[in-house]
Amino acid sequence: MGAVKSVRAKRMPRAVREQQMMDAAVQTFGQRGYRAASMDEIAELAGVSKPLVYLYLNSKEELFTACIRREAKALTEAVQAAVEPGLSADRQMWAGLEAFFRHTAENPDGWSVLHHQACTHGEPFAAEVAKMREEIAAFVTGLIAAAARQGVPPAAHRDAELAERDVAGLAQALVGAAESLAAWANETGGVSAKESAGLLMNFAWTGLDRLMRGERWSPQ
Amino acid sequence: MGAVKSVRAKRMPRAVREQQMMDAAVQTFGQRGYRAASMDEIAELAGVSKPLVYLYLNSKEELFTACIRREAKALTEAVQAAVEPGLSADRQMWAGLEAFFRHTAENPDGWSVLHHQACTHGEPFAAEVAKMREEIAAFVTGLIAAAARQGVPPAAHRDAELAERDVAGLAQALVGAAESLAAWANETGGVSAKESAGLLMNFAWTGLDRLMRGERWSPQ
Repeated sequence: MGAVKSVRAKRMPRAVREQQMMDAAVQTFGQRGYRAASMDEIAELAGVSKPLVYLYLNSKEELFTACIRREAKALTEAVQAAVEPGLSADRQMWAGLEAFFRHTAENPDGWSVLHHQACTHGEPFAAEVAKMREEIAAFVTGLIAAAARQGVPPAAHRDAELAERDVAGLAQALVGAAESLAAWANETGGVSAKESAGLLMNFAWTGLDRLMRGERWSPQ
Repeated sequence: MGAVKSVRAKRMPRAVREQQMMDAAVQTFGQRGYRAASMDEIAELAGVSKPLVYLYLNSKEELFTACIRREAKALTEAVQAAVEPGLSADRQMWAGLEAFFRHTAENPDGWSVLHHQACTHGEPFAAEVAKMREEIAAFVTGLIAAAARQGVPPAAHRDAELAERDVAGLAQALVGAAESLAAWANETGGVSAKESAGLLMNFAWTGLDRLMRGERWSPQ
C-alpha cells in the first residue's frame, strides 16, 4: 500500500494533487455541508491518503477556509474578466451578470460553499465571504457610477446625477438580487445563465415597470 | 433580594415579563452576537432572575429560536399590513418596501438576529429564517403577478405576459435586493426608510436605465 501510494504520489505533481484535494473538498463541503463533511471522505474522493490532506492543510477549518478563498477568487475573477471596459454600460452589466450566473451554475458546489456553508458556520468563514462580497460590490459600484456618468444629459439635468451614496446602495441592491437569484436558479434547476442575467437586466436595467408593459432589453 | 424580586414578579403580569425577556434577548443577541450573548446578561437586562429566564425557555437555543420567530413574524406582518389591496401595483410595492425598510431600521437588533445571527449559527436557525424568506417571497410573487396582469395590454402584446417562473425569479431578486439594501442601510447609518424604498423603486420599478437618464419615480 505505502509503496503504491508513494509511486502514485511521485507521478502526480504537487500542484495537481493539491488541486484534486481542493476539488474534492469543495464538492464534499458543498454537497454534504460543512459539519457533515469528513476529512476521510475528502481524502478518498481526492484519491489521496488522509495524512496527506492534513499535511497540506492542518485542519478541517483551514481546508474549508482555503475552499472559500479559492471559490471566492474564481467567482470574482470570472465576473471581472467578462466585463470589457470598452463596452457600453448596459453591455458591461449584462456581461458581468451573465458571467456571474454562468459561474454559479457551472460551480454549484462552490456557490453552495460561498452562499450557504460559509455563512451558516460562524464568523471567521462568514468574514471571508463578506470580503468577496465587498470586492464585488465595489466593482459593481464602479460600473454603475460609470454608467451614470454616461447616462446623464449634458446640461439641463444636473440634478439627475446620482449621489455617491445612491450608487453604493444600488450596487448593494444589485449584488443582493444576483445572489438571491443565483441561489434560486440552482435550487429550481434548468434556469440558464442567460435567463437569469436577462431577468435581472430587465428588472434592474430596463425596470420592472417597462417589463410589465411588455418591453424587453436584449443583448443584440 | 428574594423578597423584592417576588414582589416585583407579582406586580408584573406574566405576558409583560415575557415580553421584557424577549426584548432583552433580541437586543443582546443582535448586538453581541449569538455566541457571545449570555443568559446572565439577558436576565439582568430584562430585570428578572436567570432561573426565571430558564423557566420561560429551557435553553439559549430555544430562546434564540423564539427570538427569530418573533422577529420574523413582526417583519412579515409589518410588510403585509402596509400593502393595501386597493392600491395600484406600484403603490403596493412602494408601501411594502417602505414598511420593510422602516421596520428593519427601527428594529436593527431584530434585523441583525434575522440577517446575520440566525444565518451564521447553523442549520436549525437558518431554516427558521428561510421559512420567513419564503413567505415574503411568495407574497412578493403575488404582488408582481398582480402587477403583471394589470400591466399587460389587452390584445397585441400577449407575449408580454410574464412566465410564472420569471415572476418567481423577479420576486427572489427583489427580496435579495431588499435584504442587501437593509443591511447596508443599517451599517451605513442615516439612510431613511423612504430613501431605501425610493432607491429600490427606482432600481426595480422604473429601472436603472430610466434612473440613469434622470427620471424618478415618486410616490405622490
